[in-house]
Amino acid sequence: MKSLMYLALPIALLIISFFSPNFFFCVTDLDYWKPIIWRVSAAGEAEAAAAAAVIIPCSGHGRAYLEYGLVVKGHEPVCECNPCYGGPECSEFLSDCAADAGSGDPYFMEPFWMNMQDNAILISGWHRMGYTYGDGSYTSELLVNHIKKLHEIVGNAVTDGRYIIFGGGSTQLLNAAVYALSSGNNSLVNPAKVVATAPYYPLYRTQTELFNSRDYQFEGDTSLWKNKTSDINDTTFIEIVTSPTNPEGKLSKAVLEGNNVKTINDRAYYWPNFTPIPSPADDDLMLFTLSKFTGHAGTRFGWAIIKDKDVYEKMLTYMDLTTVGISREAQLRVLKILNVILEREDGKQIFQFGYSTMKDRWMRLKQIISKSKRFSLQKLSPHYCSFFKRVRHPSPAYAWLKCEREEDKNCYKILEGAGINGYEGSMYSADDRYVRLSLIRSQDDFDILINKLTNFVDKDY
Amino acid sequence: MKSLMYLALPIALLIISFFSPNFFFCVTDLDYWKPIIWRVSAAGEAEAAAAAAVIIPCSGHGRAYLEYGLVVKGHEPVCECNPCYGGPECSEFLSDCAADAGSGDPYFMEPFWMNMQDNAILISGWHRMGYTYGDGSYTSELLVNHIKKLHEIVGNAVTDGRYIIFGGGSTQLLNAAVYALSSGNNSLVNPAKVVATAPYYPLYRTQTELFNSRDYQFEGDTSLWKNKTSDINDTTFIEIVTSPTNPEGKLSKAVLEGNNVKTINDRAYYWPNFTPIPSPADDDLMLFTLSKFTGHAGTRFGWAIIKDKDVYEKMLTYMDLTTVGISREAQLRVLKILNVILEREDGKQIFQFGYSTMKDRWMRLKQIISKSKRFSLQKLSPHYCSFFKRVRHPSPAYAWLKCEREEDKNCYKILEGAGINGYEGSMYSADDRYVRLSLIRSQDDFDILINKLTNFVDKDY
Repeated sequence: MKSLMYLALPIALLIISFFSPNFFFCVTDLDYWKPIIWRVSAAGEAEAAAAAAVIIPCSGHGRAYLEYGLVVKGHEPVCECNPCYGGPECSEFLSDCAADAGSGDPYFMEPFWMNMQDNAILISGWHRMGYTYGDGSYTSELLVNHIKKLHEIVGNAVTDGRYIIFGGGSTQLLNAAVYALSSGNNSLVNPAKVVATAPYYPLYRTQTELFNSRDYQFEGDTSLWKNKTSDINDTTFIEIVTSPTNPEGKLSKAVLEGNNVKTINDRAYYWPNFTPIPSPADDDLMLFTLSKFTGHAGTRFGWAIIKDKDVYEKMLTYMDLTTVGISREAQLRVLKILNVILEREDGKQIFQFGYSTMKDRWMRLKQIISKSKRFSLQKLSPHYCSFFKRVRHPSPAYAWLKCEREEDKNCYKILEGAGINGYEGSMYSADDRYVRLSLIRSQDDFDILINKLTNFVDKDY
Repeated sequence: MKSLMYLALPIALLIISFFSPNFFFCVTDLDYWKPIIWRVSAAGEAEAAAAAAVIIPCSGHGRAYLEYGLVVKGHEPVCECNPCYGGPECSEFLSDCAADAGSGDPYFMEPFWMNMQDNAILISGWHRMGYTYGDGSYTSELLVNHIKKLHEIVGNAVTDGRYIIFGGGSTQLLNAAVYALSSGNNSLVNPAKVVATAPYYPLYRTQTELFNSRDYQFEGDTSLWKNKTSDINDTTFIEIVTSPTNPEGKLSKAVLEGNNVKTINDRAYYWPNFTPIPSPADDDLMLFTLSKFTGHAGTRFGWAIIKDKDVYEKMLTYMDLTTVGISREAQLRVLKILNVILEREDGKQIFQFGYSTMKDRWMRLKQIISKSKRFSLQKLSPHYCSFFKRVRHPSPAYAWLKCEREEDKNCYKILEGAGINGYEGSMYSADDRYVRLSLIRSQDDFDILINKLTNFVDKDY
C-alpha cells in the first residue's frame, strides 16, 4: 500500500510530461509559449502539492511537512503525529492519553486543504525583497481586492468605501485598534477604559495589560460600567464586542452606549462555518482573521475593516512602527488560498465543508450531553442564513459546558478526572462551573473527546 | 531575444522529463522511488524559480512578481519598475527624475538571488495550519539550528548556551526587548529610560514613544546621562547600541555604565557585507535581521540572541500576546534562504557578493566626493576581518554626507536642489548639515545617485 503511495506522484508527472498537449504543440508553435510557461508552472505547483500530500500518509493520524527533504536536502521527511498517536508513522494509539479540547487550533479544516487540487504556491528566492509593494504600501492591493470580493460573496461584511489593513493575525490588529481609538484627539484626561462582556476571550485582558499604557487600561466587564453614565461621559470607553461570541457562539452587540463609547468588533467567527449570517456586518471597526475561517492559524494573517480614515491612518502607523507591515510570503499564500476558495463555486465548497463538519460535531456532542443530567450545553437554535439561503443548524466552534451539580464547582477538574482537558471558565472571566471545549481541532482530537465523554456519561448514569 | 527567454523553461523541463535517469530507472526499481519523489520535487522548485526569473526580463530595470499568472489565474504578469524607469517593460528612462537615496530598501542583494539556482520554496495548501510547531512553540527548531550554524561560520555572534527567539523583523523584537528589560522584577519606581547615542536610527524613539508605556520612556541621547551617576543609580537605563552604527557604519559600544544599565545590541549590519568582523559578538541581548544580510526585507524576519532566561521568557510572552509568533511561511522561506547560503561554500558566495558590491559602491562615491570641498564623508579605514581572513576595505550601508560650507546649514535642501533625495540629519537626532544617503538600494538607484552627484560636483568646481 505504501509503495503505491510512492508511485502516485511520479506516475502523475510522467503523464503530465508525456501526454500533455502543451508539450507537443509548443514545439511547433512559438506564439504558444507564453501561456505555456504559466501552465507548466501551475503544473509544477499541483505536482508539488501532490508530492507533499502523497509522500507520507502518517497513517492518517499525522502529517509530514515540507521542511525536510523539500527544503533542507539530505533529510527524510518526518511524521508529526496528532495528540494520542505515536510511532514513526503515527500508527500507535496511546491509550492512556487525555483528550485535548483546549486550544482553538483549527485543524478541522485540514482535510479540506489536503483534498484540494492546485492549492500550493511557490516563492522564488528573489520574490518581493523590498519593504513595500509597488504603491509604497505594506499591503498587497490584489489581496485587498480578493478580501472585498470574498465578503461580497459571503455577505458577512460591508467593505464599500472602507479601509482595509493587514496584521499578524487579528491579535496584532486588536492592539493597533486600541492604540488608534485611545490616542490623539482625546480631550479627556483619563486613560481609555477597555472593556468586554464576560465570558470573553482572555487575550483582550492579557494583551491590553501587557502594554501597560498611559493611554488605555483594561477595566473588566461591561456590566461594571453599564449604568454609570457619569463615567461614560468622562472617559473614552473601548468596548470589544465578539460576535459570534467566544466561547458561546452567539451573535451579540455592544452593551455600552454614549458619545465616548467606541467599539472594536471581533468577527473571527462570523463565517458560515460557525454561524448563520443574517446580514453583512457594518460596524465601525471590524477584525477578521484567516485562522478560524480557512484554518490557516500558522499564517498569522488578519485584517481590519475600518470606516474612519483617521483611525485607519493611526493603525497604519502602528503597523509601520511595530513590525513594518507583515510578511510578503504570508500575503502571497493568503492570496492563493482566497483565490482557490473564490474559484470553487464562489466559496460554496469551503463553507459547505466547514459547516457540515462543525454541525455534525455539535450534533454528536449534543446527543451525548442530552443523556446526562450532570452537564449542560449553551442553547443555540437554527436560524436563516443569507449565505446558504436556508435555515441552518447551529455549528459553534466551542462547547460551553456547564457542570450542573451543586458540588461540581470546578468543572475543569471533573472533566480532567474523566481524561478531558478543556479550558477553565475563569479564563473567560466566568464561573468555574463552566469549561470551554474546543470543537475545531483535528478529527482525531474530536473523536477522542467524544469517546471520553461517552464513557463518562454512560458510567455516571 | 524575448522569445528565446520564453523557450528556456520548457526546454529545460523537456530535458529533465525525457533524459533524467530518474525517469528510466524508477520504472524497474521500486526501492528507488522514495528518493526520487524528493528529487522530482526539487526539480519542480528549480523549474519554478527559473520560470519566475525568466518570464519577463523587464529590461533589467524592474521585475514581474509571482502574484499574477502563477497565483491568480487568467492574469498576465506585470513589470514593476525601479524608480526613474517606466513603460510596460521598464525600458523608458524618466530623465527628470530625482535620485532616490532615502530608505534602506536592500535591493543590492537582488541580483544575487536572481542568479542563484534552486532557491525557491513551495508551500502546500495544508502546510502547518496550526498555531504551533510539533514542540508546542512558535519557532522552527530546524531554523534555530540553521541560524546557529550560520553564526558559527560567519563568526559574528556567540550562540552557545543562548536562547533564540524570532520576530517580525528586528523591529518587533526591539519593543519585545524593551518590554522584557523594563517590566517585572524592577524595584525602582521610575519608568526605565530608553536611550541611544546620536546619530541613531529614528525608530528607537518613534517606536518607544508609540507605546506610551508606564514602564519605560524614551529619554534621548546617552550624552545627557553619561555623567549623572545618581540618575543611573535610581533608574533602569536601557541603552540601545547599534554596531555597526546606522548611519555611520562604525563599530561601537555602550556608553553608560552601572548596575542598572541594560543594553540592547542592534546587530542588523554586523555582517561581512558591511563591516570587517573582528570577533563574535557576545552581548547580553543581540538583535539580528534578514533584511540587510540577505536583502529579504519584505519577509519581516528577525531574531534575538539572549543570555538571560528570564528576559527570554518575557520576550516569548510578548511575541505570544502581540502576534502569536510569526508566519510559518516566512519561517519556511528563511529556512530555504539560509540552507542555500550554507550550501554555497559555507556562506562565502553571499558575502563575497555583498561585500564586493558595497565596497565598489563606496569607492565610487568616495572618489567623487574627494573632488569636492563642499561635501565630506564619514571616515572609515580598512581592518582585518576574521571571516575573510584578510584586511578588507570599508563597505558601509550608508554614506553620512556632510555639507562643509558655513552657509549650507540644511544639507538635505542642497542635495534636493541637485536632484538627490536622502534623509535629513535631524531624523537621526544629528545636525542638518548631515544627510544619510542609502547605498544598499538597487543598482539603478545607485547609478542615478552617482550620476547626479558627479554632475553637481563637476558643476560646483
